[in-house]
Amino acid sequence: MRQSQLFGKTLREAPKDEVAVNAKLLERGGFIYKTMAGVYDYLPLGLKVLEKIRAIVREEMNSVGGQELLLTSLQPKERWEKTGRWEELGREPMYQFKDHSGREVGLAMTHEEALAEIALRSIQSYKDLPLYVYQFQNKFRDELRAKSGLIRGREFLMKDMYSFHRDEKDLDRFYRIVDGAYKKIFKRCDLDAYVAEASGGAFTKEFTHEYQVFSEAGEDIIFYCSKCRYAQNREISSMKEGDACPKCKEMVKSAKSIEVGNIFKLGTKYSIPMGLLYSDEKGVKKPVVMGSYGIGLGRLMATVVEIHSNGLGIMWPESTAPFKVHLIVLDGGKKAPPSKAGRASPTAVGGEKFYKILLAKGVEVLYDDRDDKSAGEKFADADLIGAPWRAVVSEKTIAARGIEVKKRSEKEGKIISEKELLKRVI
Amino acid sequence: MRQSQLFGKTLREAPKDEVAVNAKLLERGGFIYKTMAGVYDYLPLGLKVLEKIRAIVREEMNSVGGQELLLTSLQPKERWEKTGRWEELGREPMYQFKDHSGREVGLAMTHEEALAEIALRSIQSYKDLPLYVYQFQNKFRDELRAKSGLIRGREFLMKDMYSFHRDEKDLDRFYRIVDGAYKKIFKRCDLDAYVAEASGGAFTKEFTHEYQVFSEAGEDIIFYCSKCRYAQNREISSMKEGDACPKCKEMVKSAKSIEVGNIFKLGTKYSIPMGLLYSDEKGVKKPVVMGSYGIGLGRLMATVVEIHSNGLGIMWPESTAPFKVHLIVLDGGKKAPPSKAGRASPTAVGGEKFYKILLAKGVEVLYDDRDDKSAGEKFADADLIGAPWRAVVSEKTIAARGIEVKKRSEKEGKIISEKELLKRVI
Repeated sequence: MRQSQLFGKTLREAPKDEVAVNAKLLERGGFIYKTMAGVYDYLPLGLKVLEKIRAIVREEMNSVGGQELLLTSLQPKERWEKTGRWEELGREPMYQFKDHSGREVGLAMTHEEALAEIALRSIQSYKDLPLYVYQFQNKFRDELRAKSGLIRGREFLMKDMYSFHRDEKDLDRFYRIVDGAYKKIFKRCDLDAYVAEASGGAFTKEFTHEYQVFSEAGEDIIFYCSKCRYAQNREISSMKEGDACPKCKEMVKSAKSIEVGNIFKLGTKYSIPMGLLYSDEKGVKKPVVMGSYGIGLGRLMATVVEIHSNGLGIMWPESTAPFKVHLIVLDGGKKAPPSKAGRASPTAVGGEKFYKILLAKGVEVLYDDRDDKSAGEKFADADLIGAPWRAVVSEKTIAARGIEVKKRSEKEGKIISEKELLKRVI
Repeated sequence: MRQSQLFGKTLREAPKDEVAVNAKLLERGGFIYKTMAGVYDYLPLGLKVLEKIRAIVREEMNSVGGQELLLTSLQPKERWEKTGRWEELGREPMYQFKDHSGREVGLAMTHEEALAEIALRSIQSYKDLPLYVYQFQNKFRDELRAKSGLIRGREFLMKDMYSFHRDEKDLDRFYRIVDGAYKKIFKRCDLDAYVAEASGGAFTKEFTHEYQVFSEAGEDIIFYCSKCRYAQNREISSMKEGDACPKCKEMVKSAKSIEVGNIFKLGTKYSIPMGLLYSDEKGVKKPVVMGSYGIGLGRLMATVVEIHSNGLGIMWPESTAPFKVHLIVLDGGKKAPPSKAGRASPTAVGGEKFYKILLAKGVEVLYDDRDDKSAGEKFADADLIGAPWRAVVSEKTIAARGIEVKKRSEKEGKIISEKELLKRVI
């Protein structure tokens, strides 16, 4: 992609109404646009990151046997009345309103009711179980506080998975499999997530499990043991800082953290009111046992930014970077005086050459071909946007018959050969 | 995918509340689920088709230089008041409501205002133009009549593209390019679309262009010339049936048709009220000239079903089929008595063998491995689901050392060799 044509420009300063680091950096970098508090548009750079994360999550959900589907946002009141959640969630945070005909509808913030109803067509017998379905679907939650950028959105893309089982034992089996998949997802996004016990909130009375990443931007506090990694959300914990870990006796610590995912054993809470039963081998009707498993994609992206950034900008892990290489042409580029023979400047020629080489090798590259920006502005943009590799073409590198390459995490670049560049970034 | 594990079963009869062929067949086939009138969930089979269509549209939008982004559904009233559309569309069909804090918000049915506002950050100079952005985004429209299945939805996935230009001339140039891309998209979906002149409705007073596919399920009527393909929507046409075509003098005909896409020249209708100006070479500020270009993905899918189906079910073109091959095992499959040596039945072994061969060759295959369905039920399901190829393993095909293959459009299958099968379906 040529940066001169990119929709979304970097901003010198963060918008004044943002307090969260993730929102400040993502808006400054041209990844997102704020339409309202908690409601963000994804510009091309931001969507590229979101799609990287979506691909990782999709791969892991497919690998546990999940079938992808896509449910609706608009929801009829009658469906949610069956579980009592129309009234419960209507007080806050579910958006509910009347359509032009006067019918009451809501915007889904989760899909237990919907799936328990839809599954009536798929599940009749024990032979139809287990089943696992998931979606990437835009959720709506009318959050009272929405000051954490993409961490707490009023509209946000969520991966939600739902599982259907014949009994608790089979749910337990699959719950552990999803736990393994979740750990892989966060690791692939270069995040260190603790699995913390937590309350089920509106969903269940059993412990649920949250995936928590330490961060000052977090809205949760967890007590944890860094030795055995046992952890609990403060909301349910009887531990306190300095206590001996109940599992391994090491000293318990506490930390602010971001909940990047959660898994719930729902039991029969939704299947019974929705009438979702199956016949066992003897023909006896039993309620289906359910689980649900969520990851907010925008929140995950925001967490990567909170963890992987410094004062200058974002430092994307390769797995989630919008581009692998930020190629920059200096010393005037196209604007520099052409040679006597009328040819473009050597830096412009060099920049185009490397851009084409990298594209031909399948490397995702953002090419800063702008001819009205100084070296300082270009380097500042590169630090802000945060591609893992920066490659610079200048009069100096052309004289040295190479290209200057620097990792985002390094202070200084080094001039290396084209061959060496390809070895590093392919 | 093993059909025994597929979420979403076929229904013997169409739900009684559906009148449209597309909704009847898609619901019966297990592609969709109706949550409310005009509000449909995509089950795994349906989502596969939707993603095929999305990939085609994305490819063509990228090929004209479109940059993908993703805007929000939730919209602040203030933004739409600038163009006067808050009040205009609020009467119908825009969903508008108050959040829990009392703030008025709406659900986007289109994004001209949003993009004109967001583009303020990207467009300052003539050097920033032209720009083309697009998205696949869930739209909401509170339609009074929603009886046409996926053709007229209250919630629907739409590809909407927006272009930004320095003048009308550049808009005209790009408008023709998008017209070419649209024709490719419909052709790739095996649809014959006429380009009809139409009124701009709420958008513009100039003619706009609609892509119209003849179908009894259509809600439009167009007058057209089958020789030179000139066409107009009845709403604006001064032609009538039997007239001489104003372009080529051939006789004008009329037909019911489905509008599968449209393209609009917006001019400065949105840029002026939103303050979207650019500086030309002399530093003079001018309003940006805009265009917009829409395709409803669910409607396109429904149109393919309306056109490519018969009394037995859907007949997907290969480009949009959920699976290329429907592989069916008969004569008991796993349920059939094992051999004396305890091995699985020959048909079960044969089915598994072909399933693995096809998967290994990268062929998308739905494998009907169910052992509690009759041959009649399996064939009926295959006709209903409508994969382009049906391949049957039975005692007869095993005795003949082959596999019975039939195109969805053919009446009778033919036993061919494994080698021949691969030649046909790869």
